[in-house]
Amino acid sequence: MAIKARFPLLVLLGIVFLASVCAKSDKENPFFFKSNNFQTLFKNENGHVRLLQRFDKRSQLFENLQNYRLVEYNSKPHTLFLPQHNDADFILVVLSGRAILTVLNPNDRNTFKLERGDTIKLPAGTIAYLANRDDNEDLRVLDLAIPVNRPGQFQSFSLSGSENQQSYFQGFSKKILEASFNSDYEEIERVLLEEQEQKPKQRRGHKDRQQSQRQEADVIVKISREQIEELSKNAKSSSKRSVSSESEPFNLRSRNPIYSNKYGNFFEITPEKNPQLQDLDISLNSVEINEGSLLLPHFNSRATVILVVNEGKGEVELVGLRNENEQENKKEDEEEEEDRNVQVQRFQSKLSSGDVVVIPASHPFSINASSDLFLLGFGINAQNNQRNFLAGEEDNVISQIQRPVKEVAFPGSAEEVDRLLKNQRQSHFANAQPQQKDEGSQKIRIPLSSILGGF
Amino acid sequence: MAIKARFPLLVLLGIVFLASVCAKSDKENPFFFKSNNFQTLFKNENGHVRLLQRFDKRSQLFENLQNYRLVEYNSKPHTLFLPQHNDADFILVVLSGRAILTVLNPNDRNTFKLERGDTIKLPAGTIAYLANRDDNEDLRVLDLAIPVNRPGQFQSFSLSGSENQQSYFQGFSKKILEASFNSDYEEIERVLLEEQEQKPKQRRGHKDRQQSQRQEADVIVKISREQIEELSKNAKSSSKRSVSSESEPFNLRSRNPIYSNKYGNFFEITPEKNPQLQDLDISLNSVEINEGSLLLPHFNSRATVILVVNEGKGEVELVGLRNENEQENKKEDEEEEEDRNVQVQRFQSKLSSGDVVVIPASHPFSINASSDLFLLGFGINAQNNQRNFLAGEEDNVISQIQRPVKEVAFPGSAEEVDRLLKNQRQSHFANAQPQQKDEGSQKIRIPLSSILGGF
Amino acid sequence: MAIKARFPLLVLLGIVFLASVCAKSDKENPFFFKSNNFQTLFKNENGHVRLLQRFDKRSQLFENLQNYRLVEYNSKPHTLFLPQHNDADFILVVLSGRAILTVLNPNDRNTFKLERGDTIKLPAGTIAYLANRDDNEDLRVLDLAIPVNRPGQFQSFSLSGSENQQSYFQGFSKKILEASFNSDYEEIERVLLEEQEQKPKQRRGHKDRQQSQRQEADVIVKISREQIEELSKNAKSSSKRSVSSESEPFNLRSRNPIYSNKYGNFFEITPEKNPQLQDLDISLNSVEINEGSLLLPHFNSRATVILVVNEGKGEVELVGLRNENEQENKKEDEEEEEDRNVQVQRFQSKLSSGDVVVIPASHPFSINASSDLFLLGFGINAQNNQRNFLAGEEDNVISQIQRPVKEVAFPGSAEEVDRLLKNQRQSHFANAQPQQKDEGSQKIRIPLSSILGGF
Repeated sequence: MAIKARFPLLVLLGIVFLASVCAKSDKENPFFFKSNNFQTLFKNENGHVRLLQRFDKRSQLFENLQNYRLVEYNSKPHTLFLPQHNDADFILVVLSGRAILTVLNPNDRNTFKLERGDTIKLPAGTIAYLANRDDNEDLRVLDLAIPVNRPGQFQSFSLSGSENQQSYFQGFSKKILEASFNSDYEEIERVLLEEQEQKPKQRRGHKDRQQSQRQEADVIVKISREQIEELSKNAKSSSKRSVSSESEPFNLRSRNPIYSNKYGNFFEITPEKNPQLQDLDISLNSVEINEGSLLLPHFNSRATVILVVNEGKGEVELVGLRNENEQENKKEDEEEEEDRNVQVQRFQSKLSSGDVVVIPASHPFSINASSDLFLLGFGINAQNNQRNFLAGEEDNVISQIQRPVKEVAFPGSAEEVDRLLKNQRQSHFANAQPQQKDEGSQKIRIPLSSILGGF
Repeated sequence: MAIKARFPLLVLLGIVFLASVCAKSDKENPFFFKSNNFQTLFKNENGHVRLLQRFDKRSQLFENLQNYRLVEYNSKPHTLFLPQHNDADFILVVLSGRAILTVLNPNDRNTFKLERGDTIKLPAGTIAYLANRDDNEDLRVLDLAIPVNRPGQFQSFSLSGSENQQSYFQGFSKKILEASFNSDYEEIERVLLEEQEQKPKQRRGHKDRQQSQRQEADVIVKISREQIEELSKNAKSSSKRSVSSESEPFNLRSRNPIYSNKYGNFFEITPEKNPQLQDLDISLNSVEINEGSLLLPHFNSRATVILVVNEGKGEVELVGLRNENEQENKKEDEEEEEDRNVQVQRFQSKLSSGDVVVIPASHPFSINASSDLFLLGFGINAQNNQRNFLAGEEDNVISQIQRPVKEVAFPGSAEEVDRLLKNQRQSHFANAQPQQKDEGSQKIRIPLSSILGGF
Repeated sequence: MAIKARFPLLVLLGIVFLASVCAKSDKENPFFFKSNNFQTLFKNENGHVRLLQRFDKRSQLFENLQNYRLVEYNSKPHTLFLPQHNDADFILVVLSGRAILTVLNPNDRNTFKLERGDTIKLPAGTIAYLANRDDNEDLRVLDLAIPVNRPGQFQSFSLSGSENQQSYFQGFSKKILEASFNSDYEEIERVLLEEQEQKPKQRRGHKDRQQSQRQEADVIVKISREQIEELSKNAKSSSKRSVSSESEPFNLRSRNPIYSNKYGNFFEITPEKNPQLQDLDISLNSVEINEGSLLLPHFNSRATVILVVNEGKGEVELVGLRNENEQENKKEDEEEEEDRNVQVQRFQSKLSSGDVVVIPASHPFSINASSDLFLLGFGINAQNNQRNFLAGEEDNVISQIQRPVKEVAFPGSAEEVDRLLKNQRQSHFANAQPQQKDEGSQKIRIPLSSILGGF
């Protein structure tokens, strides 16, 4: 028998196995992106826009994530991000702060007041602008961008010129602009266009004289409280009751959590529940893991989840596989009789605010929180996704295994397996400290943010 | 502040900006395809078939157009394109002339009389043949082909042999043909197959003797008026009222134009309106711009439009962007603090019959006509596409911007911006000559073709 | 005229044509995969798992098949394939033998008795196990796998450890396992985990002592008849009446054959008929060609069919095309005036059990049987596919051609063409021996398996 002949080899492999289950450092962990893997697209004293590196450029593993990009937006109180559109669909989520978003259509406009957890889809090619309406707090927004022209690449088209970006009106010839606006070019230039910056200092002075409103020729500009109030007129708030709107914002916490206990809460909006997510086949998760708690090991059946740390600290463990003979795949002349030994690899990363973890479909993982941890998750390929838990009382697939299979699959007897499974009386979230046989009597700190209805 | 330190750099960039808004020559314009970028697949005295080069081979910009090809078909009066099928879905549009199209199914056939603007989807693998039924006019047909086997590549399978293409029956062995037709190979060869051309001249003579009908062993052959009449029996015409047929031809002008004034007409059939276009997510446009008129600057929110010049002359201006630091994308070790300056680029091309322009989603463009201009457009990724106009009275997104944002976005005051926008009283189409403050009293030439109901 | 000038060239090409219709050897036949192109993933005395090489690595022709893989599973009587899940959707078909399949969900499980021809979709990330419940016959299963994470690649995640594959529980740290199961690591290790194999021989002895059930630390293990009986409790059989179940198995022969005569039977389940196949846009065929019979030449309009030989011997002929000037495609500077001569190529292969043939959309092919031949077909891109027969009485597209077109398309007159077509009185399947003018009086052997209701 081939198996027995290979035995001494397996002994050697055993050592490799041992080595392979050691945690990988961040450097070797393709699933983990530090906050500093975001690249700054724009930055001034009023705020910044940052773009995460392409998933598919990080690792071949993410070929299917080629057309998804993460964008982080941050702005100071009383600022406005000037009108622009992108050749990408955006799913915009407010991480913290309070915003006014205006979305333009050819024949009308919609203005929305947004708060933490509010989410809206901005379809590609939609002109919009975004103000921070808070007096003190920064506005933090995360976008999942799905480009429509080029896979993985998109561009922002700015209506008005700035030092960083020309107005796209500048692209048309004088002749076309004159015919389009039925006006002299001098007037168009004076009223609409940022003039060319041959003499920047002079121009600045010129502008200060001519027009006090326009303090800064930048993408993110300061605006007054009065201007914010004018923008807020007729603004709608996100619906707190319904997530089924075709075009209005919805809140990630507008529905009850799908999993909830004293260790954490798991909110989810699936594509089936929301028409804005349906076309894109994306789900949204908001996960809170309380300090000292654990999101139990589980896997997503078919969705790949892009998890972003909004606040707090913790650690993720993700289990990957590696075939011993993986390289054989490349050989054209495969040998017929060849066993492949599958190694398990642990990918372990410390998490803090702004970090990103990609959890591929079917890969088991768990997350524990060393301080209250708030995560935002985008589920790609989300329709019909199922979470299979590997521990805990409810939704635990292991407990569904029939007795004879438990006998032959595990070293312990079926009774021993059942007894072990029953030791964990919590579901989905549990205490990250083991051997808490009598948890009922323990005191668990419920974080203030949770009580106050954080995101 | 980083911004201020970089100021001298911006002065330098200013010069680059100026350079960049100069029009690109055709050579440097990836969006423009001259009529001679079509490659001849077949040509004889009865007509020709030409194929446009692959979009994705022209430029990386068109990676998403990989699976779309343009085919141009031209035939003389009283000719027939012999039966064949393709491993591609075809959207067939009659540019000019009068045709009879027969589509075969295993258990029946459908014959249609087609005229200018008639459109039908020929699903992949459908055997069809096409006759020019006019006594004088050439038949000109344009196809958008969407291959099913290999991205961007398709093949024509010819039922009958010709000098240019063997019958696919030739591919089967003698044994299989004899069993399939339950006949001697000699009979099959004599009746169905083009014999092998070892002695072409002899064969020609032989054919002339044996069979007067078959004057030419070619893909496009001459047929008599009587044969055309026989083919026309029971032929259906395209429905002039409805565009919602599952399989019958429809006319691009069967519905009212969505935009229309004395300067032009814009007809559109969206995937939502027509089941043949729905699966493929394609829309069809027919645009007429009268001599001396302008299709006002606008952009398609999410559709990429492949525009083909059917007749006339004009000029297109398309605005693209270029990031100063685009090359940084390729660097693995991105620096954290890095502003990117976005330049605007104008792509300008003279248009004449047979030219093709690709307008990517979200890219602003305008077209003016130096003679009456007739354009045919295929919109890719067309569902939920929205046209945002940047000038004109109606459908102008700029006019939706709130007052405080106009103040900070543009050099002029909000009142000046509003006044400028109101100078153009036309919508969608306008006079290509500016400063026509009182257009009502002007005489505009309405082209004859428009009155006669051209396409 | 260009055509006439090229005549001498065509004479030369004529010779090339002749050469090109010669059958290609297996080596040059990209459409044919010998049974030994499967690569063994796992093998022990209880069975094996084999994976066919990637279609897209064999030939550029199969770029569209990039995300489809074929898996063959074979196990001895009274064996169990241990619980696992894959990051791929599986369409599982029982080729022969009798199985019990258990599919786990977080809150319940479903157990099914499967027989020859039973088919079920296992969605990606679904934990399942499969027993051979027969006392004598091997279980043979074929899977079409459609990966969800990486195009063309998938992995099996094993719940329980074995010599060939670690349990994925091994990937989690001691700390996480203890917290998850709320137990000491020693207990978890003893009950759930395969210990690390530093001393394999000792371990084996240890296991034999401790636990008689677990004879083999392998992916496919022996189980007793009593255990199989326990697994079979409440097991459902596949519905013999309906194929429209959302999640239960269906049988390929539960509906009447779409084509049937004394020479063969053709069963088909299209995506429209079965919700499990609908998302994946896949159809399933079961084709029986009796000894000495022929599946008549035809082509699939838009589906690519992956045909697997289940039993028997025969021969396939597939007709491909090749453009003379194909290489010109690669040239950037195409010449305007260039005819392309299309050659026909025959690809011919002997078939026996385990071989695989890929039939691209729109490519004509035929199959004859030298012994009773049983084929299983997966149709990719199956919705709205149509089979166009090129010979036979029914469903023959050639017979739909109008008279004048027959005249000009074929060397024979329309009457001669019609007479030839009428020689074959059978449809879909016919006698592989030609010249059987009076077939009614002939005796045809109907295979025993067909009478007994084989698959």
